[in-house]
Amino acid sequence: MKAIVLVIDGLADRPVASLEGRTPLEKAEKPNLNALAQMGITGVSDAISPGIRAGSDTSHLAILGYNPMEVYTGRGPFEAAGLGMDIKPGEVAWRCNFATVDDDLTVIDRRAGRIEDTEELAQAINENVNLEVEFEFKSWRYRGALVFKDEGLSYRVTDTDPHATGVKVEKPRALESEAEKTAKLLWDFTLKAHEVLKNHPLNKGRELPANFLLARGAGVTPELENFEAKYGLSSFCMATTAIIRGIAKLAGMEVVEPEEKYADRIKQALELLKTRDFALINIKEADEAGHDNKPDKKVEIIEQIDQAIEPLLEFARENYVVVLADHSTPCSVGDHAGDTVPVVIAGPEVRKDRVEKFDEINCSYGALGRIRHRDIMPILLDLLNKAEKFGA
Amino acid sequence: MKAIVLVIDGLADRPVASLEGRTPLEKAEKPNLNALAQMGITGVSDAISPGIRAGSDTSHLAILGYNPMEVYTGRGPFEAAGLGMDIKPGEVAWRCNFATVDDDLTVIDRRAGRIEDTEELAQAINENVNLEVEFEFKSWRYRGALVFKDEGLSYRVTDTDPHATGVKVEKPRALESEAEKTAKLLWDFTLKAHEVLKNHPLNKGRELPANFLLARGAGVTPELENFEAKYGLSSFCMATTAIIRGIAKLAGMEVVEPEEKYADRIKQALELLKTRDFALINIKEADEAGHDNKPDKKVEIIEQIDQAIEPLLEFARENYVVVLADHSTPCSVGDHAGDTVPVVIAGPEVRKDRVEKFDEINCSYGALGRIRHRDIMPILLDLLNKAEKFGA
Repeated sequence: MKAIVLVIDGLADRPVASLEGRTPLEKAEKPNLNALAQMGITGVSDAISPGIRAGSDTSHLAILGYNPMEVYTGRGPFEAAGLGMDIKPGEVAWRCNFATVDDDLTVIDRRAGRIEDTEELAQAINENVNLEVEFEFKSWRYRGALVFKDEGLSYRVTDTDPHATGVKVEKPRALESEAEKTAKLLWDFTLKAHEVLKNHPLNKGRELPANFLLARGAGVTPELENFEAKYGLSSFCMATTAIIRGIAKLAGMEVVEPEEKYADRIKQALELLKTRDFALINIKEADEAGHDNKPDKKVEIIEQIDQAIEPLLEFARENYVVVLADHSTPCSVGDHAGDTVPVVIAGPEVRKDRVEKFDEINCSYGALGRIRHRDIMPILLDLLNKAEKFGA
Repeated sequence: MKAIVLVIDGLADRPVASLEGRTPLEKAEKPNLNALAQMGITGVSDAISPGIRAGSDTSHLAILGYNPMEVYTGRGPFEAAGLGMDIKPGEVAWRCNFATVDDDLTVIDRRAGRIEDTEELAQAINENVNLEVEFEFKSWRYRGALVFKDEGLSYRVTDTDPHATGVKVEKPRALESEAEKTAKLLWDFTLKAHEVLKNHPLNKGRELPANFLLARGAGVTPELENFEAKYGLSSFCMATTAIIRGIAKLAGMEVVEPEEKYADRIKQALELLKTRDFALINIKEADEAGHDNKPDKKVEIIEQIDQAIEPLLEFARENYVVVLADHSTPCSVGDHAGDTVPVVIAGPEVRKDRVEKFDEINCSYGALGRIRHRDIMPILLDLLNKAEKFGA
């Protein structure tokens, strides 16, 4: 028996006035998600605990059975791993953006005009910035990650990113005395990188030069127990988002490049599962529609995903399929919220409940009741007959 | 007000094809269990947490309000206490089987032909094995328990029982350096017991001589808070299973011999409750039918139990009755699984919900929601008006 956990990012929502008070998921035509609900056992799940707003990182850690309270200190290390950097437990990392600042370090554009080609700039930084600590910087378009390759540093420093334009970049502050060194090193790096960038030929003549690196989300790299060792399941992760790929990589999972179309991704996953036990698939776009407050767009994406997953109905006859959202991204909030998300588990041994539709309210009447994301893997292991008994 | 907690061992199950996709509990005629559901408040419960497969030992500890994560290290001490041995906190114990091995210690039969009469063999071991540590061995038919009467030992050693026939017995290994002494002592005991047994007159001429003791489930005896001191309830436990009797004994509960027939046991319990406050009753056989993959047998046992409990309906008018399973034992799995179990609480002050049938799915629609076994005693104490207020 194999298992797929399909995370429809940001799927859950709240009633939307323009959808006659329905959520995008309630509004969408979704025969295949409903069929899974009819075959399976349903419920609602909290990413962390009731009301807590989770990131995609903390929620995916929980879905994979790791305790975010223990392993998560900031997004930096997961971004770095997701960019393919070789980051080690104990190292401190940041998510960075190439930005445009003026002469007195006021932020003009937090993404430097969404600059595309930054490889050469990253190389210049790695080669020309001299720091007391060994570091590595890597970029992908306007995004990047910075890693300090030293195990003794505290991550407890504030961001240099002011998270706004028209204001000055922020000098990082230590949030505990042990972090003074990190704060000093980060500011040293930031100013030296600024020197390298503002004089770089690639920036000459750019209307919005990529002349600054804004850092945020400092975190220390956790030692995640290897997924296969933890569960006895060979696995892969299919996701377009760096931070989710990073989590999978730090958990020792194989990270695969998804096909462009949703339907092709599902076929690709089913093919890969012929030689592997477990797939974590994240589909991102419903979350983006939530962030952008576009309920109609969200409905459309849900319907596209629903069409694509039709082969999962057959797969779930002899294997297990879990579908859930990592968190809710209500259009009205335009960001992640702390509502529960619907969850369905379909497969040969589940106790079918009476729920016939896969949505926020119907699933709250399911036989799973209200669980937490960290319960998903134990429930799945039990169904896969891979669970060990605690006691005799 | 008095209370009965009736544990129908291994009652919960999964859909069974030969029962038209119903569980044995759904299939069974059970007017009395349904009547309790109609009178009471229902829900589902996790022995430990969602998906975790519990033993009968860890689940009963949880039902009695002890935290298995804190007090449970292995079945040995509970087996020893259940055999009536006087075992003290800190002492290490094992569950043992009399077995048959050949000259090179290959296991021929893990139960020595289910030998019945082993008292003399046990006596010979206690009298003739000389060990560096004081020990006690006690047997009941082919089963037994070994206790090292020394508080300083680590229990972290592997079993000598290879859990299979046709393979050699295993020399115990220390799982931490502090356990080297325990491993050495256990092996010393095992070889010396083998010498005593293989030369014992009772074994002469037996086709499957009881010439070896296989040990497993090493654990250190916990200090369980006395049940009556913890809850202010005088209590007794009625169970046929040694390990459950052992838990009750270590909790300071009275352990009573059950009558043969289920109906007589219920009458016996109601009689005993005239002078006591609380009864834990375990009925074992549904679990055995699950282990043996016999759904029809399981249905039959459930129906027998249902008939026997009819007097509980009257009892529940002025007292409390809780019925639940310790864990699920799905016929398809043939062992304990991590599914929820149905639970009903009937009694004068409960909020009646809308559930009319006592089974896995119906109870998941009950007003208790999804709880954990460790919640049972606090809920019951509250209903019995014995709970203290936390706060002012």
